[in-house]
Amino acid sequence: MATHLALNFQKSGYEVTCIYSRSENSAERLADRMGTMGTGSIKEVPREAGYYLLCVPDTVVPEVSRQFAGYRGIWLHCAGALPLDVLSDHERYGVLYPLQTFSRDHAPSLSETPFLVEGCSGEVTGMIRQLAGSVSASVYLMDTPSRLAVHLAGVFANNFTNHMVHIAQQILEDQGIDRQLITPILNETFQKLSRMKAAEAQTGPATRNDRQTMDRHLEMLKVYPEWEKLYTFISRDIRGNPREKKE
Amino acid sequence: MATHLALNFQKSGYEVTCIYSRSENSAERLADRMGTMGTGSIKEVPREAGYYLLCVPDTVVPEVSRQFAGYRGIWLHCAGALPLDVLSDHERYGVLYPLQTFSRDHAPSLSETPFLVEGCSGEVTGMIRQLAGSVSASVYLMDTPSRLAVHLAGVFANNFTNHMVHIAQQILEDQGIDRQLITPILNETFQKLSRMKAAEAQTGPATRNDRQTMDRHLEMLKVYPEWEKLYTFISRDIRGNPREKKE
Repeated sequence: MATHLALNFQKSGYEVTCIYSRSENSAERLADRMGTMGTGSIKEVPREAGYYLLCVPDTVVPEVSRQFAGYRGIWLHCAGALPLDVLSDHERYGVLYPLQTFSRDHAPSLSETPFLVEGCSGEVTGMIRQLAGSVSASVYLMDTPSRLAVHLAGVFANNFTNHMVHIAQQILEDQGIDRQLITPILNETFQKLSRMKAAEAQTGPATRNDRQTMDRHLEMLKVYPEWEKLYTFISRDIRGNPREKKE
Repeated sequence: MATHLALNFQKSGYEVTCIYSRSENSAERLADRMGTMGTGSIKEVPREAGYYLLCVPDTVVPEVSRQFAGYRGIWLHCAGALPLDVLSDHERYGVLYPLQTFSRDHAPSLSETPFLVEGCSGEVTGMIRQLAGSVSASVYLMDTPSRLAVHLAGVFANNFTNHMVHIAQQILEDQGIDRQLITPILNETFQKLSRMKAAEAQTGPATRNDRQTMDRHLEMLKVYPEWEKLYTFISRDIRGNPREKKE
């Protein structure tokens, strides 16, 4: 995420003066790519930047932030699940959270990525809005509880859908069947979601309460006890949701 | 599914002589659209067709098949989870299963949809292969247990991913947040799956074992006790899968 944000802010005209990372190597790699300074030493980080962007794992944000106590500028974290006030040791601070999944090999388009922003004051919020607006057309002012709800929704929409696909691929692989066989149904699943709500798009044995088919699946899942439980649980939840009974 | 198959077989040059449905109305609606005969009466179904395609819910396939005892031609069901031999009352029979999700308002492309076929003899299998090959470039000979595994994988890849997205949309809606906010991350999730295996694409708090974030999510999920359990369960399964620990 650090890489994608830094490159996009630079492209949109912001001067990126320093890349700091707890791992000096990765700081220098990105800094080289951007033609700027990279360091693994806190002392070398300029004390007078306009913005300090913390792109580190959620769990270390408070600790890294504390190490920079007394630095000026606006301190921002990029975490959906962290409260605004984890940065309250600083004078001016806020949140810049891109609702997106990042991977090393590929840069998702930030211009359509929703950025959720929150600042410690109206003035700071306005500045973060402007910063986010320089890379994305989709910027939302959102307080900590709402941002957490969005982050949670993102986990279901990304991590958990991905895990369902992983299980599907593993079942195929274990049977010696090409995992690409499900690519067309995956594509159609996602195209459907752009046309209608998920609750209206639902099909399948759980929706129809087709016990025979579900029993055949469960029999096959006996070799995967965890997935057998998961199957039962999700099917019950689909069945229990009256909004998902259409077909 | 009946509609999509009938229209596609007609387009590829097969003559569709009769649409039978237990509901006369829906038989006539489709028959009108195709310029052929529609009926709700078994006695009006021609006894000498080349193929009889059973596109009815899995649970009623055996019953409907029995009602046509003695009819000639090749009898086919279209169900992923039904064994070949539910049609063994007929002389020649088989399976033609399109691995796809169908909806009323939209025709998914059948030409890229994998068709899994199985016949009661080598000769019949060859004929079903040819029939399927007239609408799809992707035809696989697959026996009953393998087809069931593919069908099960399809449930995870379609029904269960869809349900995860439903939960995400419901959480947003309940907070008064636009459900379209997750559209870009959904798109990226699916684009990632075309580039890499799901196990390699996984990210998020469960993969990182970020307990703090998971606890914040669980706190928020207290108003949805079923989804709280689901969250815990899926997160544990992601965490337990060493192939999904990358980020």
